[in-house]
Amino acid sequence: MTAARRALGVCYYPEHWDEALWLDDARRMVEAGLTWARIGEFAWSRLEPEAGRLEFDWLDRAIDTLGSAGLKVILGTPTAAPPRWILDRHPDAVIVDADGRARKHGSRRHVCFSHAGYLAECRRIVSFLAERYGRHPHVAAWQTDNEFGCHDTVISYSDAARRAFQDWCARRYQSAEALNRAWGNVFWSMDYGDFGQIDLPNLLVAQANPAHMMAFRRFSSEQVARFNRAQVEIIRRHSDAPVIHNYMGRFLDFDHFQVGADLDVAAWDSYPLGFLLTRLGDDEARCARYLRQGDPDAQAFHHDLYRAVGRGRLWVMEQQPGPVNWAPWNPAPLPGMARLWAWEAFAHGAETVSYFRWRQAPFAQEQMHAGLLRPDSADAPALAEVRQVAAELTDMPEAGTAQARVAIVFDYASAWAWEAEPQGQDFDYFDLVFAIYRALRRKGLSIDILPPETATLDGYRVVLVPALATLPEPLSAALAGFGGTAILGPRTNAKTSEMSLRVPLAPALPGLDTVVARVESLPPFADVPLADGGAFRRWFEHLEGRAEVVERTREGRPAMVRSGGLTYLAGWPDDVALDRIVARACADEKLATLDLPEGLRVRDTATHRFVFNYAPEPQDFEGVALPPAGVSWRPL
Amino acid sequence: MTAARRALGVCYYPEHWDEALWLDDARRMVEAGLTWARIGEFAWSRLEPEAGRLEFDWLDRAIDTLGSAGLKVILGTPTAAPPRWILDRHPDAVIVDADGRARKHGSRRHVCFSHAGYLAECRRIVSFLAERYGRHPHVAAWQTDNEFGCHDTVISYSDAARRAFQDWCARRYQSAEALNRAWGNVFWSMDYGDFGQIDLPNLLVAQANPAHMMAFRRFSSEQVARFNRAQVEIIRRHSDAPVIHNYMGRFLDFDHFQVGADLDVAAWDSYPLGFLLTRLGDDEARCARYLRQGDPDAQAFHHDLYRAVGRGRLWVMEQQPGPVNWAPWNPAPLPGMARLWAWEAFAHGAETVSYFRWRQAPFAQEQMHAGLLRPDSADAPALAEVRQVAAELTDMPEAGTAQARVAIVFDYASAWAWEAEPQGQDFDYFDLVFAIYRALRRKGLSIDILPPETATLDGYRVVLVPALATLPEPLSAALAGFGGTAILGPRTNAKTSEMSLRVPLAPALPGLDTVVARVESLPPFADVPLADGGAFRRWFEHLEGRAEVVERTREGRPAMVRSGGLTYLAGWPDDVALDRIVARACADEKLATLDLPEGLRVRDTATHRFVFNYAPEPQDFEGVALPPAGVSWRPL
Amino acid sequence: MTAARRALGVCYYPEHWDEALWLDDARRMVEAGLTWARIGEFAWSRLEPEAGRLEFDWLDRAIDTLGSAGLKVILGTPTAAPPRWILDRHPDAVIVDADGRARKHGSRRHVCFSHAGYLAECRRIVSFLAERYGRHPHVAAWQTDNEFGCHDTVISYSDAARRAFQDWCARRYQSAEALNRAWGNVFWSMDYGDFGQIDLPNLLVAQANPAHMMAFRRFSSEQVARFNRAQVEIIRRHSDAPVIHNYMGRFLDFDHFQVGADLDVAAWDSYPLGFLLTRLGDDEARCARYLRQGDPDAQAFHHDLYRAVGRGRLWVMEQQPGPVNWAPWNPAPLPGMARLWAWEAFAHGAETVSYFRWRQAPFAQEQMHAGLLRPDSADAPALAEVRQVAAELTDMPEAGTAQARVAIVFDYASAWAWEAEPQGQDFDYFDLVFAIYRALRRKGLSIDILPPETATLDGYRVVLVPALATLPEPLSAALAGFGGTAILGPRTNAKTSEMSLRVPLAPALPGLDTVVARVESLPPFADVPLADGGAFRRWFEHLEGRAEVVERTREGRPAMVRSGGLTYLAGWPDDVALDRIVARACADEKLATLDLPEGLRVRDTATHRFVFNYAPEPQDFEGVALPPAGVSWRPL
Ligand SMILES: [Zn+2]
Ligand SMILES: [Zn+2]
Ligand SMILES: [Zn+2]
Repeated sequence: MTAARRALGVCYYPEHWDEALWLDDARRMVEAGLTWARIGEFAWSRLEPEAGRLEFDWLDRAIDTLGSAGLKVILGTPTAAPPRWILDRHPDAVIVDADGRARKHGSRRHVCFSHAGYLAECRRIVSFLAERYGRHPHVAAWQTDNEFGCHDTVISYSDAARRAFQDWCARRYQSAEALNRAWGNVFWSMDYGDFGQIDLPNLLVAQANPAHMMAFRRFSSEQVARFNRAQVEIIRRHSDAPVIHNYMGRFLDFDHFQVGADLDVAAWDSYPLGFLLTRLGDDEARCARYLRQGDPDAQAFHHDLYRAVGRGRLWVMEQQPGPVNWAPWNPAPLPGMARLWAWEAFAHGAETVSYFRWRQAPFAQEQMHAGLLRPDSADAPALAEVRQVAAELTDMPEAGTAQARVAIVFDYASAWAWEAEPQGQDFDYFDLVFAIYRALRRKGLSIDILPPETATLDGYRVVLVPALATLPEPLSAALAGFGGTAILGPRTNAKTSEMSLRVPLAPALPGLDTVVARVESLPPFADVPLADGGAFRRWFEHLEGRAEVVERTREGRPAMVRSGGLTYLAGWPDDVALDRIVARACADEKLATLDLPEGLRVRDTATHRFVFNYAPEPQDFEGVALPPAGVSWRPL
Repeated sequence: MTAARRALGVCYYPEHWDEALWLDDARRMVEAGLTWARIGEFAWSRLEPEAGRLEFDWLDRAIDTLGSAGLKVILGTPTAAPPRWILDRHPDAVIVDADGRARKHGSRRHVCFSHAGYLAECRRIVSFLAERYGRHPHVAAWQTDNEFGCHDTVISYSDAARRAFQDWCARRYQSAEALNRAWGNVFWSMDYGDFGQIDLPNLLVAQANPAHMMAFRRFSSEQVARFNRAQVEIIRRHSDAPVIHNYMGRFLDFDHFQVGADLDVAAWDSYPLGFLLTRLGDDEARCARYLRQGDPDAQAFHHDLYRAVGRGRLWVMEQQPGPVNWAPWNPAPLPGMARLWAWEAFAHGAETVSYFRWRQAPFAQEQMHAGLLRPDSADAPALAEVRQVAAELTDMPEAGTAQARVAIVFDYASAWAWEAEPQGQDFDYFDLVFAIYRALRRKGLSIDILPPETATLDGYRVVLVPALATLPEPLSAALAGFGGTAILGPRTNAKTSEMSLRVPLAPALPGLDTVVARVESLPPFADVPLADGGAFRRWFEHLEGRAEVVERTREGRPAMVRSGGLTYLAGWPDDVALDRIVARACADEKLATLDLPEGLRVRDTATHRFVFNYAPEPQDFEGVALPPAGVSWRPL
Repeated sequence: MTAARRALGVCYYPEHWDEALWLDDARRMVEAGLTWARIGEFAWSRLEPEAGRLEFDWLDRAIDTLGSAGLKVILGTPTAAPPRWILDRHPDAVIVDADGRARKHGSRRHVCFSHAGYLAECRRIVSFLAERYGRHPHVAAWQTDNEFGCHDTVISYSDAARRAFQDWCARRYQSAEALNRAWGNVFWSMDYGDFGQIDLPNLLVAQANPAHMMAFRRFSSEQVARFNRAQVEIIRRHSDAPVIHNYMGRFLDFDHFQVGADLDVAAWDSYPLGFLLTRLGDDEARCARYLRQGDPDAQAFHHDLYRAVGRGRLWVMEQQPGPVNWAPWNPAPLPGMARLWAWEAFAHGAETVSYFRWRQAPFAQEQMHAGLLRPDSADAPALAEVRQVAAELTDMPEAGTAQARVAIVFDYASAWAWEAEPQGQDFDYFDLVFAIYRALRRKGLSIDILPPETATLDGYRVVLVPALATLPEPLSAALAGFGGTAILGPRTNAKTSEMSLRVPLAPALPGLDTVVARVESLPPFADVPLADGGAFRRWFEHLEGRAEVVERTREGRPAMVRSGGLTYLAGWPDDVALDRIVARACADEKLATLDLPEGLRVRDTATHRFVFNYAPEPQDFEGVALPPAGVSWRPL
């Protein structure tokens, strides 16, 4: 892949401001070193105030103003914020939640992905936009919708969703008998006589059949992909500019790889301080330490993930510049973090980092969300850091990533599988993957994230495949022929594609003589200590078979077994155990590791080593002193 | 009562498996020493795939296969799992929950006990079964439905329930004026003009009238009894085999004694590890200690309770054999527990212990629930323990229980009363009764549980009657003439049958000059210390009167008073106080007690003393060394 | 203001008791020293058993019996407890909660303030009462309804409320364009095309627009005022007796000042023990210490608040006399507290303290709520204390209050504003105001509470204006001309009246050169230490400008700035910081302060200093030994 140019951008909402401000805003953006302005994604009610009455003039003028000032425009489709008249035309288009409550207009994203009438409205407005701006010289990229699924809006229990799910089942299973067999509906007389009897798996008195849940999750995810695809197809008919979607952090309700297959670039919205307090489950001490820096690994993880989703092309579409409004508490970043976060993104291959937003809006839901300007148009603190990054980029403009030596397979369907059947209430797929990711980062490793459809592992030395519910055949074959160290488990390949236990028993790995004879989930006060230190938490599998035992529990049961490079891990390791397991694998594969101090992190690109200090205290690394929020780089 | 033969059984679902497996399964059951196979209770969709289309051939063959192999069959009615077409015919039959949400097909038990159309469907399928198998030589017992009320399904706020409740009120009170008077509806202008105005007590803005709540709870309980009775009457018309229902643990939503009056045997489903983490409210340290053994007293309590419900005849219909799927965490039992639990059941008078289930199903909701076989048909660990119990039973086949010397009165209506009006948010009836039961077990006592309708206490020396909301006249008379020590209170006889305070004030016990002048409920950080050690927690009553004071608070108020053998306890004692109170009562009555080490438990039958080690460490008792999960017995 | 006579009263429900008891009850009331009997407020179903069928004879007799015995009657309108037939006539009158669930008959207050049909019914019954008793010699005061808003009933999401809100918006904004502009609805395409499209702000998938929330809260509050006003107008047409409403403690859902403007007297219902455990957010240690006394400042705060609401005229309409029934736990007061609470009320200017209730009802929801009599008509413990207060009142009958030197501005709309947009999840307006109030009380100060409409500060030396969302012009002018010390902030004047940020930035105080450049909300584990000790918690604002810095953070940022007497506080101070800030302000203004021991409290009237010992241990103060629950007074 050729390295793209690194650039900065900002999110702008011309419709929020008096038109008299636009020109000065555009000039100040350019002066600050920004290249991109992202606009349009919530403007539907101003583009089409009533059904069919289009008002695009203001947008023409806004694009011209920005473009003439020297900015490239990313134009968003406005489908994440349907205007009120949509509900006049499609009153049943609203999302119905798991409690059966129809949701209302008054925020955004309240419309169901499965509703045909709404999809037609979206096609219509996207067609208008694409036709009008598809060849516009200043429109250099497109964004579809905004943050698919934000506010838990992927899953809807509406009538529209129910009917669409019935159709989906009919296509997948062809007959009710086949569906009953696939799901095991005989179990509690749950059998269906025809597809029209199938309901969505909410409001049951006991747990749903995990197969039913899993089918509904696959369906719901595919509805998002279908919705996005409809927009991409329209845009592509009229434009050659890249099509991008901006995903969110730790968001698992739809398969981002599947959506990404229709995009040119994967972007995400990076809010390190908000995510720290809401999505990482950290304890108070860790939250207190990183309160104004964000988790040292969460940004890196998502950069690596979305680089995979974008098949190498990554943007940060929204970068937090100051306090936000939506976390339970909203502190200010340490001075320097708006710069550090940008460089972490670039080091992971981001082509563009676009700050959210230009001027803080004094009204509506996000009035307490900082921008690069204050509401009174004075510079907010981040703007100086943006200028610094822009200046630094002139010396280091190329975004190049090298293939890593270490990879983790990440699978959205596995997240759904273990939500459908956690078996232990804290068995969270993301937590397990992220715990492993962190252990790798603590050793100074750069990591690639791989989709489950991966068919070759060439170039990797260590590959981790935790809790992958169903191992696809191509990946299974790649693992069988893999020359490095592969660590699978716990729970890897436990399920068939229809969410049943597999017989013969899991993990059913060719060449590895081990079976999971029994499974235990464990409360927080009942860890299983390992003989060499550390423990299994939450999950422990009793293995049988003749594979070589690499780790044992203190009581002597197998904890990790292997045959050649194929290793199976029988539980959820704590950090002590993870550090040992990672160190052993790297030693076996002769990969150099570091022992990084807490809060210091390293990322290697094709050409440079970047060092980031997330700690609130200064740190030295390889002779370089880094203050809090410090960044340094050197050629490799 | 003549002692019945002890036997083992297993729950089997022929409809889950290829018919080719049945014969081998049956042979392996017999080889393992099993006597009973319990089948049929979730098979409605396979017995009647469409309304009126009956398919009983496969069941004929299954019963023949099992019976021919030497097994006795318990045949369950399938009414706990209505097929999907039931809702096509009776869309309004579903349960409506307290939030007003109609529940859906997709698990089980989602249909309202009050729905006449559903009851008619149940009568129809039960009639077909009873007619076909009532005289079948291999059908040796019947089970009605399955775990009435599981998943909180006793209480429904459906239209069907509302109308049935109005009829129930009309029958009970005859006039709206009488109902208004009985409930005190004048209080907040809650008066009704006619029965059609009465609604169910959900979705109020403030608390419901406790009398309204209590009436609704009595009604809801009676709906279960009526539903069960309808099935029993049909079965009895065609069969002489005993009719059984399998109750659950710590389940209080309906009056099990009332349902039991229509049965021949009371059974229950014993899941010691699942119950430990979900139903006993134990702290972490205790959960950690007994994680793989279950609570040392919970099984015993339920055996004693259901022995009373079955008027002496007790089964365990489902015995946990390994990890289950439904608790927040699901550890594996210690080796030996599948045997220990069976012997604890037999020691408490169980005739049959039936393990759930034969082969672990690889599909649907309970695919992670262990069986005696693994999904791949290999032996699961419990099977060897089952074989051991079967062998031991050849030496000890008779199930005989002696009347105990100590009894506790247990009353479902009191649980409803204190839910309707807890007054202190942690005043839980079951918790109080179980705390007392545990204190008795710690002293090595064997206990009988008595229903509130008990009219004679002959043979008992110590009788405890905690928190019995309304003391029935026959029990009151029995207590008045009782020659042993009776301990009543706190809160005993505080209410009239219409859930009002009684005037003259409680406890209104003949011969005991004490009144509860005032009541205090207390948060966990405000215990009332007792002069002789320990404290009252949660609840403390200010007593007035001239009865002899047996215990005082540290501040000098009466804590326990008595007149002759009639004792009244003015609060909820902690364990220190309970141990002293129990010891004093036993000393007064010259009952021998033991001071058992933590986790060791004793149970005396008519002929033997059984000793069980629930502790995770070995223990010695009367010269016998018991390993963890150890069981021993000796003749008395 | 002329001091009124202090008196005692009691709440009585003649309809609850056999008429034969009335006369004796009345005589015992008089004998105990009571002056007032409050009746009628839940009696609708007995006054009008069916629509239009009036039965007032019993009420005639009850009033006559009480009046003839020497009591003055407060007659309540019964609209807080609509009879069941109201729903037959107006099935859609019920409150719909935020989840969209219609509420039911069976408790009280379940009817929507916005429902025109219900309002008409209320006008009808109030007219009947006012016409019949408006000139009755024994009816000496009126109470409208009861505890407006109790059980969270101010806010309703019913169709009636939605339509009324649309009308309210139409009146306020005149055009949808103006509303869109005022609320910033462009933000997420939330624009409305006409008022009929406006929905209530519940069941959104993301947060509501704070401007939408705020408009709905203002509307909801005004509906209460309108409902009350309708009754007051009717009563005033027929009666000259004072009209009173009894508010609750820590209740913020409607603007009590606005309702109070239509009343003659503001009353409140004082339940110190229940409020301690439910409304003050205290930690366990503090709850344990004050479990049987109540918070030492909560009663005082509400007395001061409602004295302001009543423009100087204050009653306690319901005074807790013993354990109640509705808190999570319900302990008994320490002996003496029923007296102490009455004297605290009188010391704060209460004219009447009326105990709730006369005889404990043995039936319905409040059967565990103590009265002055037990259910069996024996004296309950509080009755002797009531007699003592009655005797003491003969020596000290006048209720006179002096204007305090210290004042706090309290604003209901600010509570709604920070609920609509907390920004930090623990930013609770009441908590902040009450923390400051407590700090003032710890220094022995007597305090006035002022409404936000205050236009003069004459007579005050120290005025605190914390977190007042929008500073009204008259108060702003008064502050500009104020000669004492005014402490504003944090968050004061941050918002326009339409809930936008103000530009120029807050606090926008004339003469004070400071702006809030940035805002941080902080989790409990991330306080900001102050240079002189203590810390900011929850909230910290970064100030810019040239105002004199009075306090700094340990890191050197401005924490408090001033210009002359105008001071701005940039965060939420902990108690250490508050004590210093209060002490400095009082020193600057030469106000004498005390350092009171924990639990001892002082209140000065126009003529006397009262001292109250809320501590559970005896304390000495100014040479007087006060036992627990002790009260003393001396002339000033
Ligand atoms: Zn965003
Ligand atoms: Zn079961
Ligand atoms: Zn009240």
